[in-house]
Amino acid sequence: MNITANWSYPTAVKLGRGRIKELAAACTSLGMKKPLLVTDRGLANMAITQGALEVLEEAGLGRAIFADVDPNPNEINLEAGIKAFRDGGHDGVVAFGGGSGLDLGKCVAFMVGQTRPVWDFEDVGDWWTRASLEGIAPIVAVPTTAGTGSEVGRASVITNSQTHVKKIIFHPKFLPGVVICDPELTMGMPKAITAGTGMDAFAHCLEAYCSPFFHPMSHGIALEGMRLVKDFLPRAYHEANDIEARTNMMAAAAMGAVAFQKGLGAIHALSHPIGAVYNTHHGMTNAVVMPAVLRFNRKAIEEKIVRAASYLGIAGGFDGFYDYVLSLRSELNVPNTLTAMGIKPDRIDELAAMAIEDPSCGGNPVTLTLENTKTLFRDCF
Amino acid sequence: MNITANWSYPTAVKLGRGRIKELAAACTSLGMKKPLLVTDRGLANMAITQGALEVLEEAGLGRAIFADVDPNPNEINLEAGIKAFRDGGHDGVVAFGGGSGLDLGKCVAFMVGQTRPVWDFEDVGDWWTRASLEGIAPIVAVPTTAGTGSEVGRASVITNSQTHVKKIIFHPKFLPGVVICDPELTMGMPKAITAGTGMDAFAHCLEAYCSPFFHPMSHGIALEGMRLVKDFLPRAYHEANDIEARTNMMAAAAMGAVAFQKGLGAIHALSHPIGAVYNTHHGMTNAVVMPAVLRFNRKAIEEKIVRAASYLGIAGGFDGFYDYVLSLRSELNVPNTLTAMGIKPDRIDELAAMAIEDPSCGGNPVTLTLENTKTLFRDCF
Repeated sequence: MNITANWSYPTAVKLGRGRIKELAAACTSLGMKKPLLVTDRGLANMAITQGALEVLEEAGLGRAIFADVDPNPNEINLEAGIKAFRDGGHDGVVAFGGGSGLDLGKCVAFMVGQTRPVWDFEDVGDWWTRASLEGIAPIVAVPTTAGTGSEVGRASVITNSQTHVKKIIFHPKFLPGVVICDPELTMGMPKAITAGTGMDAFAHCLEAYCSPFFHPMSHGIALEGMRLVKDFLPRAYHEANDIEARTNMMAAAAMGAVAFQKGLGAIHALSHPIGAVYNTHHGMTNAVVMPAVLRFNRKAIEEKIVRAASYLGIAGGFDGFYDYVLSLRSELNVPNTLTAMGIKPDRIDELAAMAIEDPSCGGNPVTLTLENTKTLFRDCF
Repeated sequence: MNITANWSYPTAVKLGRGRIKELAAACTSLGMKKPLLVTDRGLANMAITQGALEVLEEAGLGRAIFADVDPNPNEINLEAGIKAFRDGGHDGVVAFGGGSGLDLGKCVAFMVGQTRPVWDFEDVGDWWTRASLEGIAPIVAVPTTAGTGSEVGRASVITNSQTHVKKIIFHPKFLPGVVICDPELTMGMPKAITAGTGMDAFAHCLEAYCSPFFHPMSHGIALEGMRLVKDFLPRAYHEANDIEARTNMMAAAAMGAVAFQKGLGAIHALSHPIGAVYNTHHGMTNAVVMPAVLRFNRKAIEEKIVRAASYLGIAGGFDGFYDYVLSLRSELNVPNTLTAMGIKPDRIDELAAMAIEDPSCGGNPVTLTLENTKTLFRDCF
């Protein structure tokens, strides 16, 4: 089954096998004549990246690439990217990659139009209204994993190289004008990355679904996203070239990111500090803490989860759903505990203090306090 | 429970009781200094319309209104609206009302930027690319019913006054820049309109959910939209001032229109010609033909409906869902058959010929032919 689809929200999405061939047309549709492809160092020389550059070159758009991008992009990468954009006389960005290439590419396109420093656009109150709209460059986004969903997001995460703190930089113009979701680009991922990124998409959907805020569009998208993960992540994990599974996981990843406008929760509030302190894989960390968070939130989410379980074809209500999460993790070789991930429970006080400051906190169905967050961390070991 | 929410897709949506007060700010955010409020004749002198004009006037944006709009807006209304826009020196449109005010307002804003006739922008192939983008005026949409969802749509239906044929006029720029969903505006609706518009929203969700096309975001939105209708339409019907119910129905209406980008089906393919020939209420007609269409499509949709029924808390799988639709109709005093609606089965051949030409046909899970559509019409009497 070869799925192909064009969607118009949250932006123009072109999904389907081989659609990277439409990259040049996507750039042209946004007025680009000389795009700069931004990706991370690891991807720069891979065949999928070179193939994308060839599509651009064949259409007369050049084959410019900027790849000095760290796994956690920082403001030094950003400055270098802005310089490459200006020196090359570029007029648009192809943001290409997993989270880092997408996030930095989007931020370069935004910042070439600004005079203020990037930290002035952190996702705080109405700081985004400080931006000048005129010089922002258009963006085509091309994800190469199925997890973060940054391709349909209005923010980038940029790490401060001095303090090592991750900041969310937000502006509506971060949303790419066109997104190309070509599942073939994800077929070469190592198994652990398929698992970790897929569980990231699942965590986005699960937390958005459980968030108490009123956003029924996101609620429905989150539920259907969980169904896609349930039906297709194990297939993508076991059989790397299952294109139907890969296509559905690309959709699920985009859905997770669209859905989490409704809110995230304790899974992310715990996972962010763990990642900052121990440099663990974000999606995998989400998967490790997920059962403890489900137990923690049970009273507040039981009715919703029972309803979701019915839709997902899981018997046994909340307990059935909980057991399903455990078995999914087991099938994907996710570590059972933070201990199994190689982490020691000696910095829980510090982690809990960071967690309750995390922006994801606000969407958790049970209010996080320093005390109950410490207990929750302990339950993850 | 006073629900208030801001959403960013498919466009900026401001939902909540009393938010009509934000109308002037919404206009200003899109650069308007002298908006023209477009609505239909029936609404022009109502308190909700005058209240909206007062909000504009208090903010120094004037109180200009154009209301020469028929219940089925045609190109004569459109020309008059364009003239009013130009003569008044306006710079934006407040599209205000049920389907007709919204559709004509959106179309006026689009057409003030065009030199070609409106029929050149019918939703056929890539005709929309014929449009000039420069002169299109910005749009704020304010729905006053909870049904069509035109406030979040990229098209308007304009009737040809000569041929009486309804044409879908499409362009991405028909999508309003800001939508204000204020449920208080819907509280004065007659019961039959609450029922008919609510069943329209339900029909949009049901058909989008059953459509075979791959659009899992719309699929999830459609499912959750059905849940909102199930939980809140009877309450809005029985108790006109139930603001929580009205708020949820406004959300459900927007969700139906967003979801049906995934496709509609035979309910709409039948309802459109019936409406054209007998001038029946669109949403009510959808509700009348709904059970026959469910029976007709059963084999193709049973699995999906069983899953939806589980989520909706309806026991008995497909049959349970079918019985639920019958009981919902009964509770809302929807006529059981086309006969009960006052229609005679003497023009079925003509209606079927129109139905299989309807654009909604393509999304029906079972292919419509002239023969099976005649049979389906007979089953609605």
